[in-house]
Formats: sequence, structure tokens, C-alpha cells
Amino acid sequence: MTGPRFITFEGIDGSGKSTQARLLAETLMAQGNDVVLTREPGGSPGAEEIRQLVLTGDPDRWSAETEILLFTAARRDHLEKTIQPALAAGKTVICDRFADSTRIYQGATRGDLRAMVDQLHSLMIGREPDLTFIIDMDPETALKRGLARKSGEDRFEDFGLPFQETLRHGFLALAQAHPKRCVVIDGNREPEQVASEIAAYA
Amino acid sequence: MTGPRFITFEGIDGSGKSTQARLLAETLMAQGNDVVLTREPGGSPGAEEIRQLVLTGDPDRWSAETEILLFTAARRDHLEKTIQPALAAGKTVICDRFADSTRIYQGATRGDLRAMVDQLHSLMIGREPDLTFIIDMDPETALKRGLARKSGEDRFEDFGLPFQETLRHGFLALAQAHPKRCVVIDGNREPEQVASEIAAYA
Repeated sequence: MTGPRFITFEGIDGSGKSTQARLLAETLMAQGNDVVLTREPGGSPGAEEIRQLVLTGDPDRWSAETEILLFTAARRDHLEKTIQPALAAGKTVICDRFADSTRIYQGATRGDLRAMVDQLHSLMIGREPDLTFIIDMDPETALKRGLARKSGEDRFEDFGLPFQETLRHGFLALAQAHPKRCVVIDGNREPEQVASEIAAYA
Repeated sequence: MTGPRFITFEGIDGSGKSTQARLLAETLMAQGNDVVLTREPGGSPGAEEIRQLVLTGDPDRWSAETEILLFTAARRDHLEKTIQPALAAGKTVICDRFADSTRIYQGATRGDLRAMVDQLHSLMIGREPDLTFIIDMDPETALKRGLARKSGEDRFEDFGLPFQETLRHGFLALAQAHPKRCVVIDGNREPEQVASEIAAYA
């Protein structure tokens, strides 16, 4: 592989993005690439501790603004400790969720926060992925999948179908706004079919 | 008391600011005011958890930037959960350290961070105190005091006298830049003397 080195997967819960991130990592490794597969929130020891702080306990104990700050702190640590060192060593980094998830989830929860998320990102993170796969999926199917494997951490699933629809449209609008780095992939197919389309892009 | 309601105390470790914050709270309460005495980092249950995350473990485990984000997350929670509700209820809030400490400590550790701290504050916090007492103190005496009661959390004491001098000058420059809200108090006196000067201002 040549070209993009920092690849992210985005989409609603249950869209299959974690599976696709893993399948792409396996494909690229089989081709002889050095690959680091990581995820957010988390992805470094410090960021995992912050993840625990955000995702456990009463879901309402943090305001949306405090949550955005904690996610940004976790992302900064993840970037410094995991992503940047791997890229500097010539490795490919595949990340399950990154800044786009904060843009869409927090922006969908409260629309007025989107500008705040963007300003905070440009001030404290800066880095965008080279390539982002947005796994698009029928929200009803995705929601059923998500609920089936409910971990207790995916709090947004509780918001139900209309919220998943809002998220889906948020991700599609994001792809339109960033056509150079974002590719929308139809996730309503067998995982192997989806994976082979993705592998052709990456 | 009429006038300022959100009062902060700033200064280097060992300057006596925590003692003075407490003494002022006692004086104002004795005068019949409703007073909330709080401190940073911390001051609300969520912010105390973030404080633990920042101040325990390997002091180098967080970068200065991640630390600034975590302190800002803690401050946002403290503001929402403790400071703003108290002010809204007509109480006086006295806080031992606030945003100025982040400006001076993180700005003194790495000069290029000061602009970042200011931008982050204006984006995510906004609120400044109505009145800030900067307790000015001979750094050598302050350092001895600080070391005498070393808690394991005051990591900056380890940087020694030149660093304390830098911090002192940082606080004095801040007072000059914000003459309307900042009052410099000579802390090189008996606590009772210092307290009576402060009570006259507040």
C-alpha cells in the first residue's frame, strides 16, 4: 500500500465499522504492511482511563460541554501516545472512530455544539485522517445489531430510531462536506462484500 | 457585602492563599453572608475525579496540552455544578485557584502554551472572577512552607526556586494586565494582618 496512512472508520453503532476496521487491518497486514489497529474513545492507556471516567456512572453526570472536553483530552493523548508514534515509524494506523464521531454525536445531541467541537478540534488536535470510511447503514437494522450486543457503554442507542436517523444524516452530510478524505460505503451487505470494496480504496 | 460575588485567590504554593480564602469566608459569613468556599483543581464531585486522574500516577504521563484539557474539563464541571448554582442563589463564591493558575503554571512550564490556555478558556469557560486576590510572597519562604506540608500533589514544588520566581512574576504581570479585577496583596506578613487588608477590599 502507498498513499493514505491514517485511516478512520465512522458510522452509527451497529453499522459494522469495527468489523470492517479489523478486516482492513488483516488485509493490509497480509500484504506485508505494518498496521496499528486502534479505537476511540480510548486507544492509549491514559485515554482509556478518561474513557472509563466518561462512560461509567450516571450518564447525566457530565454536561455535553464537559464530555466534549474529556473526549478531546483523550484524543490528544491517543494522538500523542499511539497514532503519531506509529505514523512516524512508517506504520499504517486504522482507527475505529475519531474526531468525526464527536462532531456528529455531540452535534446531533445539541446542534449548537458543532461549532464548539470544530474550534476545539482545530485548537487542540489539528490532525485529520488521510482517509475516512463512513459505513452507511439502515438505522433500524443497525439499531437491532447494536442492541443485540449492548455493552452498557453505547449510551446513544437508548435514544432510539429517530436519533439514529439524525446521526446517519450527520455522517452523510460530513462526507459531502469533505469529499477528498471521506468515502461512503454501503454497509447493507455481507461483511465480506463490504470489506472487498473497502480494500480496493485503501 | 455588596458588589463582587465570585472571588478567587491566586499565588504560588506556600503563599498562604488557602488560609486567606478560608479567613475571608469566615469573615463574610460572620457578617451574615451566604458563602461557598471551594477550590481548584476540583470543587465538584466530577472535577475531583478528574483532579485525581491528573495529579496521581507518573507526573509525566500526561502532556502539558492534555493536562490543560483535563483541567479545563474539571473547571467546566466545577463552574456548572458548584459556582454558577451558588451565584444564581445569591451566594458569594470564594475559590482557591481558578483559571489564572492554569494560565500561569502551564504558561510558565512552556511559554508557547499561554495563548492556547487563553483561547480554550474563552471557548469553554468564559467566566472570569469579579475579584482576584493575588497573594504575593517571597518565593524562598513560600517554597519552604510548601515543602513543609508536601502533599504529593504539588508537583510544581519540585521545580525549585527559579521556577517559583517565574511563577511569581507571572502572577504579578497578570495583575498588571487585569487591574480592574486583580489586587496584589503582600503575603510576607502575619496571616491576621493580611486577612484584615483583604477584608477591607472584599
